[in-house]
Amino acid sequence: MTLDYTTQATWQPVGGDHQSPIDIATATAQPSQLSAISWRGLYQAKTVIDDTTTLKATGTGLAYLNDRDFTFDQIHFHTPAEHLIDGVAAPIEWHLVHRSATGQLAVVAIFGRLGKPNASFQGLLDQFTPQTSHDLTEPVDLTELLPDTGTVYHYLGSLTTPPLTETVEWYVCGDSVMIGEAQLAAYQHLFAANNRAVQPLNDRPLIAERF
Amino acid sequence: MTLDYTTQATWQPVGGDHQSPIDIATATAQPSQLSAISWRGLYQAKTVIDDTTTLKATGTGLAYLNDRDFTFDQIHFHTPAEHLIDGVAAPIEWHLVHRSATGQLAVVAIFGRLGKPNASFQGLLDQFTPQTSHDLTEPVDLTELLPDTGTVYHYLGSLTTPPLTETVEWYVCGDSVMIGEAQLAAYQHLFAANNRAVQPLNDRPLIAERF
Repeated sequence: MTLDYTTQATWQPVGGDHQSPIDIATATAQPSQLSAISWRGLYQAKTVIDDTTTLKATGTGLAYLNDRDFTFDQIHFHTPAEHLIDGVAAPIEWHLVHRSATGQLAVVAIFGRLGKPNASFQGLLDQFTPQTSHDLTEPVDLTELLPDTGTVYHYLGSLTTPPLTETVEWYVCGDSVMIGEAQLAAYQHLFAANNRAVQPLNDRPLIAERF
Repeated sequence: MTLDYTTQATWQPVGGDHQSPIDIATATAQPSQLSAISWRGLYQAKTVIDDTTTLKATGTGLAYLNDRDFTFDQIHFHTPAEHLIDGVAAPIEWHLVHRSATGQLAVVAIFGRLGKPNASFQGLLDQFTPQTSHDLTEPVDLTELLPDTGTVYHYLGSLTTPPLTETVEWYVCGDSVMIGEAQLAAYQHLFAANNRAVQPLNDRPLIAERF
C-alpha cells in the first residue's frame, strides 16, 4: 500500500515484537569486542520498598554501558529467573535498572546461584518491612550483587512488567553470583513467583560481550 | 492495580508517546559533553530507489554515534522538513538511517538551506529514474550531504513513517547544508510534500551535543 500523507492522523505505532525476557541460546550469540559494563561508582540502596510482587530498592550508582554513562535507578528481584540460558532458569534473577541522560533505559540482569550467603542481599532482606517504603539511615552496599567480570548477552528488549515499554537495552550477565539457600528461602517466603514467560526473539540480533 | 502474574497473557505493550518528528525548542536542550557524531568511512550511495513518496538511496558508510559503531543503511528526503527548530521548518530534511550490531536504529537528520548547488544531491538526482530501483555502476559520493561540525539535538523517538517504530536514536543537526534552488525545485517536481506532523515531546529529555 502506498504511503498516504493525507491520512497520517490514522497512522498507528506498531510495537510489541521486541519483548523481554528471552531464552538466550548462547551458541547463536554473535561475539563482539565491545566492553559491555564498567561499574563507575559505588552501588548503594537508600530506600527499600515492598513493591507488592518484589523487593525493590532505589539508590545511587553509575555504570558505563557500551561506552555511555548510565545512572543506577533501582534494583528488584524475580524468582525464578525471567531470562533463560539455553532453556535453563536460575532460581533468582535481579535487575539493575539504569537510565541515560536522554532517558534510554538499560537493565543489567544478574542470576543468583546457591552458595555462600550474600552480604548485600542480606542487607536488603534485613531492611525490608512488608507493605512499607523504608528510607535507610545507613545505605546498603550493593557491591556483592554485582559480578566483576564475565560474558554479557546484550540485546534490545522491553520492560518485563506493564507497560512493557520498548526499547530497553538488556545486558544479561552469563556468570551468576552466589546467594545463600536460606536467603533465597527467606525471599521466596515474602514473594510468590514473579517471572514473565519468555518471549520470541523474532528478528533481533543477540550479542556476546565481555567485561 | 496490583500486578497479577497469572494474567500475564493479557498484558499489552504500551507505546506511541515517544514519536518523531518533534519541534526542537533549542533553549530547553540540556548541554552535554558527548561527542555526537564522527563520520568513520566514506558515505556512498550504490542503489537509487523511487520509494513512491521519496528518493531513497542505499549504500555504505560508518559512523560513531555517542561512542558506538553504526553502519549506514539508507538516505531519503522529506520536503518540507519534518523536524522544526524553534517552530521553523527548513525547505528540506534528509535522514541518514543507521543500524548498530544489535539492531538499534539511529537516524542523523540534516536540514538543507538554499545556496550553492550540492554535488552529492545532484548525483542522486542524476541517477534517479521514476518507478525503478537502480543499481549504480559508479557509486554517488554522499560527502557533501554530511555536515562537518556543529550542534546536534539528540533525543529518543520513532520512525516518521509506519510502522512508526520506537525507540530510534535521533541526531538532528542544527547547522544546515546548502543545496541549490533549482535542485530543490527538481526534487519537488518529482515528489509531493511528505512531512509527518510534529509530535508531542512528552517526558523526553532533549540533549544538545557538539561534533
